[in-house]
Amino acid sequence: MSELRKDPVIGRWVIISTERAKRPSDLIVEPAKPRGGFCPLCPGNEDKTPSEVFVIPSDPSKNSLWAVRVVPNKFPALALDGTLQNRTEGMYDVMNGVGLHEVIIETPDHSATFSSLSAAEFTNILFAFKNRLNVLKQDSRLHYISVFKNCGAAAGATLEHPHSQLIALPVIPRWVIEKLDGSQAYFNNKQQCVFCDMIEQELTDGRRLVEHNDDFVAFEPYAPRFPFETHILPRKHVSAFEDTSDHMLQALAEIMGSVFKKINKALGFPPFNFMLHTAPFNENVNEFYHWHLEIIPRLTKVAGFEWGSGFYINPTPPEQAAESLRDTAL
Amino acid sequence: MSELRKDPVIGRWVIISTERAKRPSDLIVEPAKPRGGFCPLCPGNEDKTPSEVFVIPSDPSKNSLWAVRVVPNKFPALALDGTLQNRTEGMYDVMNGVGLHEVIIETPDHSATFSSLSAAEFTNILFAFKNRLNVLKQDSRLHYISVFKNCGAAAGATLEHPHSQLIALPVIPRWVIEKLDGSQAYFNNKQQCVFCDMIEQELTDGRRLVEHNDDFVAFEPYAPRFPFETHILPRKHVSAFEDTSDHMLQALAEIMGSVFKKINKALGFPPFNFMLHTAPFNENVNEFYHWHLEIIPRLTKVAGFEWGSGFYINPTPPEQAAESLRDTAL
Repeated sequence: MSELRKDPVIGRWVIISTERAKRPSDLIVEPAKPRGGFCPLCPGNEDKTPSEVFVIPSDPSKNSLWAVRVVPNKFPALALDGTLQNRTEGMYDVMNGVGLHEVIIETPDHSATFSSLSAAEFTNILFAFKNRLNVLKQDSRLHYISVFKNCGAAAGATLEHPHSQLIALPVIPRWVIEKLDGSQAYFNNKQQCVFCDMIEQELTDGRRLVEHNDDFVAFEPYAPRFPFETHILPRKHVSAFEDTSDHMLQALAEIMGSVFKKINKALGFPPFNFMLHTAPFNENVNEFYHWHLEIIPRLTKVAGFEWGSGFYINPTPPEQAAESLRDTAL
Repeated sequence: MSELRKDPVIGRWVIISTERAKRPSDLIVEPAKPRGGFCPLCPGNEDKTPSEVFVIPSDPSKNSLWAVRVVPNKFPALALDGTLQNRTEGMYDVMNGVGLHEVIIETPDHSATFSSLSAAEFTNILFAFKNRLNVLKQDSRLHYISVFKNCGAAAGATLEHPHSQLIALPVIPRWVIEKLDGSQAYFNNKQQCVFCDMIEQELTDGRRLVEHNDDFVAFEPYAPRFPFETHILPRKHVSAFEDTSDHMLQALAEIMGSVFKKINKALGFPPFNFMLHTAPFNENVNEFYHWHLEIIPRLTKVAGFEWGSGFYINPTPPEQAAESLRDTAL
């Protein structure tokens, strides 16, 4: 029989649908097809993007001057232009689109994947995230930065070259507010961080555990929206990602590399998104919020039921997904 | 410059991205391809579905015994089996999947579309929705029914034959709670229904209006998540869809038929979802909530930014989408 499971942070219910249970081999994967053609993110084409705002130089042995390059998005969703102005149109509220939209070019290698990157290369990407967060938080117009990656056309990527993105916003997005409110309420009630409690239960229980090292843990959440949704959290309480030490970034790079290798091997390089969840700038050090990374392979379609209700139907129990990933030999 | 617009009911912000503005011809449409093969929903194959729970008989001149047929989903997300039981697993909450999942077979004609159905055929579908809501609300285990349609593989449909679905839930879904809370707060503040106020502003302003008749209005919302997202609302305040008179269902059928013909003509039969939003059973007559239909053509991909933030980037301003639809000659 199906189960309704509740997310302990935001109270979102999901249906774990055993009638529709799917093993990895039943899930439809649309692996990214090489599209070829001109790539504006490749080395040699640096003049085809706006000027870089941050760069990590390359090892001199490589065929590129840079290892990671961060550039403004050529077609930004928001631009850091002028002051934030609110106005109304009758009963509606609107503000001008002050913000920022940047592209993190993760590697010079056009055909690299999250399975082929080394831990050092992963660390560089994470270091670029940290750097941009630390620089941009100085701008008082920006209240939150969403760091994310779309990989594969089905996950919304329009460029093939490995890249992630950040969008800096003049307001705190609603799902972040929900997570903050939920974790604050839990803390008020129990004097404990809900994420710390979750980590403890997952390490003890073990059924949803994918892997862990001294500093990080990767597990399938109890109430996941999607098959093989995987979360990675620091084991020690830290609310803001940008406060992560460089040593910790290396440990994160290692577990990310390993988790993505398992996902790619078990599921055949599925399109995926990842989203970094971190505390907003106005309260970036606190006891109740705990930064984390959400990885969602895009294996199912989101349809009318989900759009109408905010409920999700997930045909793969997280215990089964975690077991598949644990059993994947690298 | 881009704008950030706020939904007046739930406070969700969307980015209307003029840098990325898209006209209908720029939007990628993946029209549904005929898949052929055996169809369990076609006349003659009635024994391939579970027994019907509701049927509207056909006009005797037609090649089918039924005009609309409602059957339990063969692979239900939830089943109406036993009593609702809550339990905990450590810090997590779970309940057994008590609920219901039905399929509304909208027409015997496998190749019909929402452009080819007559107003009388549309009325039959709406009458089936109303009937099922009225019957199922008698079951005290059910608190909300989500009625929705997935059309086209990109919108999550797995069967080609025209059908919609309903899922009856033992809890009120969170997005419904958000809409209820938002409209209740607006009412407490202004002693007015937020939807009634929106209808008045849209009819007066006209820029986002798609069409209207004496009983219904169709417009592009001020802060739409998606290009060509279209809402249809009764002009007179009614909180619960199932309280709609049969006369009103005919007027709704007429405007739905016309709106879908315009969407299909302007956008080339895009995949789409629609979702019926109605008051939950425990407070189905009230002053603050107003039932409505949301139609979302599936023209853009939802990606990491949306999944991480609950923010949406919409490249088509609703004023432009409404103008395109108004200018579409049928």
